[in-house]
Amino acid sequence: MSSGTRQESDSFGIIEVPSERYWGAQTQRSLGNFRIGADRFPPSFIRALGLVKWAAAMANMDFNLLDRKIGEAIVSAAKEVAENRLDDHFPLVVWQTGSGTQTNMNANEVIANRAIEILGGKMGAKDPVHPNDHVNRSQSSNDTFPTAMHVAVVEQLRNALVPSLRHLQEALSAKAESFEDIVKIGRTHLQDATPLTLGQEFSGYARQVELGMDRIRAAMPRLHPLAQGGTAVGTGLNSPAGFSETFVERIAEITHLPFESATNKFEALAAHDAMVEISGVLNTIAASLFKIAQDIRFLGSGPRSGLGELKLPQNEPGSSIMPGKVNPTQAEALTMVCVQIMGNHTAVTVAGSQGNFELNVFKPVIAHNVLHSIRLLADAAQSFTDNCIAGIEPDRERIAELMERSLMLVTALAPHIGYDAAAKIAKSAHDKGVTLREAALESGAVSAEDYDRWIDPKAMTEPDPGD
Amino acid sequence: MSSGTRQESDSFGIIEVPSERYWGAQTQRSLGNFRIGADRFPPSFIRALGLVKWAAAMANMDFNLLDRKIGEAIVSAAKEVAENRLDDHFPLVVWQTGSGTQTNMNANEVIANRAIEILGGKMGAKDPVHPNDHVNRSQSSNDTFPTAMHVAVVEQLRNALVPSLRHLQEALSAKAESFEDIVKIGRTHLQDATPLTLGQEFSGYARQVELGMDRIRAAMPRLHPLAQGGTAVGTGLNSPAGFSETFVERIAEITHLPFESATNKFEALAAHDAMVEISGVLNTIAASLFKIAQDIRFLGSGPRSGLGELKLPQNEPGSSIMPGKVNPTQAEALTMVCVQIMGNHTAVTVAGSQGNFELNVFKPVIAHNVLHSIRLLADAAQSFTDNCIAGIEPDRERIAELMERSLMLVTALAPHIGYDAAAKIAKSAHDKGVTLREAALESGAVSAEDYDRWIDPKAMTEPDPGD
Amino acid sequence: MSSGTRQESDSFGIIEVPSERYWGAQTQRSLGNFRIGADRFPPSFIRALGLVKWAAAMANMDFNLLDRKIGEAIVSAAKEVAENRLDDHFPLVVWQTGSGTQTNMNANEVIANRAIEILGGKMGAKDPVHPNDHVNRSQSSNDTFPTAMHVAVVEQLRNALVPSLRHLQEALSAKAESFEDIVKIGRTHLQDATPLTLGQEFSGYARQVELGMDRIRAAMPRLHPLAQGGTAVGTGLNSPAGFSETFVERIAEITHLPFESATNKFEALAAHDAMVEISGVLNTIAASLFKIAQDIRFLGSGPRSGLGELKLPQNEPGSSIMPGKVNPTQAEALTMVCVQIMGNHTAVTVAGSQGNFELNVFKPVIAHNVLHSIRLLADAAQSFTDNCIAGIEPDRERIAELMERSLMLVTALAPHIGYDAAAKIAKSAHDKGVTLREAALESGAVSAEDYDRWIDPKAMTEPDPGD
Amino acid sequence: MSSGTRQESDSFGIIEVPSERYWGAQTQRSLGNFRIGADRFPPSFIRALGLVKWAAAMANMDFNLLDRKIGEAIVSAAKEVAENRLDDHFPLVVWQTGSGTQTNMNANEVIANRAIEILGGKMGAKDPVHPNDHVNRSQSSNDTFPTAMHVAVVEQLRNALVPSLRHLQEALSAKAESFEDIVKIGRTHLQDATPLTLGQEFSGYARQVELGMDRIRAAMPRLHPLAQGGTAVGTGLNSPAGFSETFVERIAEITHLPFESATNKFEALAAHDAMVEISGVLNTIAASLFKIAQDIRFLGSGPRSGLGELKLPQNEPGSSIMPGKVNPTQAEALTMVCVQIMGNHTAVTVAGSQGNFELNVFKPVIAHNVLHSIRLLADAAQSFTDNCIAGIEPDRERIAELMERSLMLVTALAPHIGYDAAAKIAKSAHDKGVTLREAALESGAVSAEDYDRWIDPKAMTEPDPGD
Repeated sequence: MSSGTRQESDSFGIIEVPSERYWGAQTQRSLGNFRIGADRFPPSFIRALGLVKWAAAMANMDFNLLDRKIGEAIVSAAKEVAENRLDDHFPLVVWQTGSGTQTNMNANEVIANRAIEILGGKMGAKDPVHPNDHVNRSQSSNDTFPTAMHVAVVEQLRNALVPSLRHLQEALSAKAESFEDIVKIGRTHLQDATPLTLGQEFSGYARQVELGMDRIRAAMPRLHPLAQGGTAVGTGLNSPAGFSETFVERIAEITHLPFESATNKFEALAAHDAMVEISGVLNTIAASLFKIAQDIRFLGSGPRSGLGELKLPQNEPGSSIMPGKVNPTQAEALTMVCVQIMGNHTAVTVAGSQGNFELNVFKPVIAHNVLHSIRLLADAAQSFTDNCIAGIEPDRERIAELMERSLMLVTALAPHIGYDAAAKIAKSAHDKGVTLREAALESGAVSAEDYDRWIDPKAMTEPDPGD
Repeated sequence: MSSGTRQESDSFGIIEVPSERYWGAQTQRSLGNFRIGADRFPPSFIRALGLVKWAAAMANMDFNLLDRKIGEAIVSAAKEVAENRLDDHFPLVVWQTGSGTQTNMNANEVIANRAIEILGGKMGAKDPVHPNDHVNRSQSSNDTFPTAMHVAVVEQLRNALVPSLRHLQEALSAKAESFEDIVKIGRTHLQDATPLTLGQEFSGYARQVELGMDRIRAAMPRLHPLAQGGTAVGTGLNSPAGFSETFVERIAEITHLPFESATNKFEALAAHDAMVEISGVLNTIAASLFKIAQDIRFLGSGPRSGLGELKLPQNEPGSSIMPGKVNPTQAEALTMVCVQIMGNHTAVTVAGSQGNFELNVFKPVIAHNVLHSIRLLADAAQSFTDNCIAGIEPDRERIAELMERSLMLVTALAPHIGYDAAAKIAKSAHDKGVTLREAALESGAVSAEDYDRWIDPKAMTEPDPGD
Repeated sequence: MSSGTRQESDSFGIIEVPSERYWGAQTQRSLGNFRIGADRFPPSFIRALGLVKWAAAMANMDFNLLDRKIGEAIVSAAKEVAENRLDDHFPLVVWQTGSGTQTNMNANEVIANRAIEILGGKMGAKDPVHPNDHVNRSQSSNDTFPTAMHVAVVEQLRNALVPSLRHLQEALSAKAESFEDIVKIGRTHLQDATPLTLGQEFSGYARQVELGMDRIRAAMPRLHPLAQGGTAVGTGLNSPAGFSETFVERIAEITHLPFESATNKFEALAAHDAMVEISGVLNTIAASLFKIAQDIRFLGSGPRSGLGELKLPQNEPGSSIMPGKVNPTQAEALTMVCVQIMGNHTAVTVAGSQGNFELNVFKPVIAHNVLHSIRLLADAAQSFTDNCIAGIEPDRERIAELMERSLMLVTALAPHIGYDAAAKIAKSAHDKGVTLREAALESGAVSAEDYDRWIDPKAMTEPDPGD
Repeated sequence: MSSGTRQESDSFGIIEVPSERYWGAQTQRSLGNFRIGADRFPPSFIRALGLVKWAAAMANMDFNLLDRKIGEAIVSAAKEVAENRLDDHFPLVVWQTGSGTQTNMNANEVIANRAIEILGGKMGAKDPVHPNDHVNRSQSSNDTFPTAMHVAVVEQLRNALVPSLRHLQEALSAKAESFEDIVKIGRTHLQDATPLTLGQEFSGYARQVELGMDRIRAAMPRLHPLAQGGTAVGTGLNSPAGFSETFVERIAEITHLPFESATNKFEALAAHDAMVEISGVLNTIAASLFKIAQDIRFLGSGPRSGLGELKLPQNEPGSSIMPGKVNPTQAEALTMVCVQIMGNHTAVTVAGSQGNFELNVFKPVIAHNVLHSIRLLADAAQSFTDNCIAGIEPDRERIAELMERSLMLVTALAPHIGYDAAAKIAKSAHDKGVTLREAALESGAVSAEDYDRWIDPKAMTEPDPGD
């Protein structure tokens, strides 16, 4: 891939860089110093860095801090970054300096060199566009990087996760509606309980997902505020008064998203509580989806020796040794994603607690995990919806069979004959292996007529209508 | 404590119960079957159960489902539970049935026997007040227990945690204000950075706590909805239509809190996402407070060989072997509390994901951990405020000394002479062990006059004012 | 409880203490300064502190650093602590100074006052027995507290957890043996799979528990080393050379446990990696027991609409609304305990990572969580064994019915007719709702004779015997 | 990259596959059905799958279950997989079926097609080499995949993590030795404490790392046992009796590692406790390294307003805005890695607890996280050693200055004049801002001669030598 090198420099001296890459000395140095793992920032984050540099260049021009020609070239280059056209020029791993300075400098260097190229200059010359003095003008990694974190997370939540959850919620609601007349056995403690409709069961799932979207919405007011303008320690040193406000206007224009300037920039640099909070929301959604997926696979278990109430779509052969086996693989993929999100959340929590003084230096690991969690949840919810939920069919025969066997219909007798008498009937039916009706009549506490009036499974799926 | 026993019974038969206790057969059976640990439900939860039983009795009377005399006696007994006057009659541990049925039955039994006593009956007779048929009327453990969870959590958040956080936030804000003129060295990556005021530093802490209260507020719309009315599986079987709405009116009256009926009772029984969510909020607050406490103890480290910028109150001798040692013990207690909350949150998350079908049977462990976290955070924030924050004094001399030594004032030169030239000056000062001013003048890049105009630590604590 | 107060003093001055309590000034001060929660150290830890003070007094006498009369009185008082006879005199909460100094001083004060009493002196006089100069002689909280942590944990593992796991493992093995002839359907992905015996299934559970004990054993070599002798920072200042070795001899004598002196005392004070490690082992055991309990309750689900292969003991009524319902409550209590242990483990992990310089000051929260986890696991495993596993009966009829229905017996055809042909037969049986035999014969790929020879469920529970 | 497609088939029918890829129908189907995230199995796992297939083919030949020509071709192809030469043919993501069946089939398909190619056949023909009937002979995904997990983890622990930890431990020990004469202030609770040598401080770090290696070693006996031979549900159906033993002989030969056949195959398929355990060990090592890295960066903080006892290597410019700033970036990368491992551990723990019946279907997420953690720890420990620890220099002047100021030298007075008198001297020195010596003499409790004899910082770094 390499066709030779060119020289780039920083305050540590000169270093050779692959000639076909836009990055400069600090990026190259980081490549050498941090040979740790293979985790790189996702495209959503590179894009956000591009958006930030773009908006910052416009704000700098607004303040006459950038020559317009240089400013325009920076904007052009930053747009290319924002459009993910230069992702190959962002080679750094997550495991670097905790402020993300190296990745911020990577953006500064790539944009500077690309802008130099646009302006017909010589890459590496830092002239006419300097990575620090121009691209990073009025900024510090310490405000730029967390700003990019918020921008990327808000974009991904709105454009990836919420649509995907909406899709799932609609599919679950559609099933809830189409299953609304199917009366089935309820299960509490895994044990037979009183009946409900399959539609009611699915309505609970749909509601969980709906509330998940509410939770994202409720956290947004802490994600829209941006750190930009705090520069190195939150004071705004080396940025003009008002830069923060102008910047958020510019980035709001570009992204059509309601970003605002963080009320307190010291908080915005030194803590990432908003990231811990949204990670907690993702963790909650993971708990929701785990429950739903778990239910679906148990209800679809069988085909002959499980619960077997649902028929799940068969998407692929299930076993390398058991011919004809089909497994609830979408539910499995989703539950695996859910436990990963729980793990990512632990990482974000610990990282979030470890800020010191004016800076939290766990920014890259926080950004990485939150964006990873969003991506996984969004993709898995989509896949689960399309490849599983959408194709679920009830096994009406099986559902009816299981419902009719149940002893827990006895609950409908309790208001009439008392809890203790009803309990005796259920116990006797269980011990003798007879039907509930048989045991009830045998008990002498209920007449056949009353039994048939009182025990109506469909009626048991609602509160008592009263007289 | 025991003065003999009386007989109580349930569907499993007769069992001896200590005569001075109001509990009945099912509570006694649980005591025998679950000899696991020593964790009991906190008074806040017992109170909430009392409130629920009280409101339920009133709702049942509204529907004419309870004879008024019996209903009034239940209300009287439930009030005593709600006022924590009968806590000694709630002996069960957390590690019991996962629906909390045994603790719900404990409440039913205690209230029934106390009501029987009030009405002049014989304890254990279940007459004239029956624990299931009267006290538990129109209810199931499956809706009562999660209702009590929400009621207890909302009360504790509002009455304990938020006031305590407000107290802390006010103390931090007061310090921020009184420290607003103290210019000090900033620290990023633990390394010397550009200056800020001690007031700015504390304003960041105050803002973190302020946002913590916002987070609690944002989660409330998912905590106000109550499961009551869902009964066994969410359908409301054996409760009258409208019971749920009447119940929430009654409990809102009693508690003066805006409880509502959950939109979907299937979700409310089978999932505890709202608990996972609020636990995530507590976890976020724990991350915030960890950071604050950590900073305070590092800034107060010394007395002679640490950073020493703050003088922390001395509340007790610090060492059993080092005479005269004083330690930042309040910060230590708080950070220990914070890691406990992180741990509790993991437990709540896993528990929350493990619902099956119509019921999540990890209710007791969820209630226990969320209430434990709230209590610890509330108490620790209070203690930290009163015994540490309130008494903090700055060591102005030390702060000035550290600030003046710093090389990072060089940052103010960068906009004038460029990043690279400024970097060289800082490096030369560092390598030669001279002051920044000396190195700057020696570099030839800055005149003495410019240096003194450009380097103004107080001015560096704000954005550039512009021309 | 109070019958007046007496005066006690420390370097901070005089303070009133309840006259009927042995504790002194520092304990009393801590009570006032740390009103945080209600978590106290368990008896196992108070005992360990007593053991440590006892052994230390003997070692001090060995070095002639304690007058024998004073030493003997300290030993007597420390024994009373070790026998948990003075637990009421240890009122401090976990949320105190992070070195546990206040609880160490609590022990020093109680033992000093009790020894003074034994010697006929006046409590609070610090004469003839001084809490620091005599009881704490050659010690610091910084080595005493972590020593007590290791002693308590080792004792609890050996005396509580291992016996309880052994009990469970034996019960599971006994069931495995008695179920060895019961052929049942296997389930992978929750779906029907090839058969195994119920005994084989239980043998897997027994093996998990067996390996859990191996894991405890494997961690012991990091728990036996004790910090004692490191004093304040690990150097052993103010203790005689050789104290560490003499101390471990003494405590090994007293406890009959193979404690040793930690190779490196700096590690032993500043880190609690051994606690993080054992917490990881407890976490592993929790994962094991979760799986076992989860299986048991699913296999016991029903009674009529679940899997229903096992009949679990019925210990109590299961529902406040559904008469006659019986639930797998022991499995629920155990799984709740397991998620608590996972949570406790997160707390221990974070706490363990947060040592600074010469001391980890998260000692109390670490001790609290590890001992809590051990207690819960030990109690829950015992309860689960006695109240659930021991009474499990197979439902042979149901097991046979489910097994016979299964299509996965087709796997035995694959080696004979190939995977693809076998898959077709299974798919056809499933689609047409016929038996596997019918589909196999219809396919033409298998003769009736071969089918009956090849498909032998019992034979399918073992590898192919070969020719 | 694509030059057309070829047809492949499975029991679900025909599907088009890129002609330049060896994978077959099931792999292609998974690509379509699981568009979730971008996480793929690492090379270490692909290699392990190759090793397993290689050893299985040899074992099958040993049992005459594979024609030798076919067997040899499989071995050749599997070797190429084991040498990571076919990694491009393993495109599947982690988020697939929970048994890893699709990745096992990916291996079967790639090896079958490559073997067909070797034998001059037509790819996709499944002849003369069939992915299931030949490559997967005597195997199931359910035993193959967990076998590969253990093989990959053991190899990575031995070949990557342990060498890297050894390297770190040796570097720390070398520093400990070279710093053994440097007496410095100790710090407990972040506060000044009694002195120790810098060498002693580093010896604690070295010991932590040494114990980390012991922990890995102690877990190995649960990682060497392999699931292979259990086939679908642990019974070994469709494998010859003795296959398990022959397989482990073969794989031990190939890898020169002491693998054994798991005692109980039901446990080995249905649980991954050994993975949870080793993840707990990695989590413990992460806690250790967090502490070490945290100390190093605090001790290196400054350069002028921090503790400044250590001079850390300067590897790159540290700030995009503060010229000349250098940060402890290696320590930051390492601590970020540590929190990631804690997060991964939570994911593994939850996943490990969620096995059901005969299979844990969270295998891919477990494998992914454990291997991720090992890789990150190994790389980060190496990078931290080479780019930070190796170049650390003490600032002897600063160290001496801080030590001499300290009041905690007073501890050496306590055994002579008592704790209370010593405490008063320290308090008076602190309050008056005088030296300890001045305060001591002023107190009248100590003569100048005694003071100078008793207070000897170097002597304070060891226990009292005795007379």
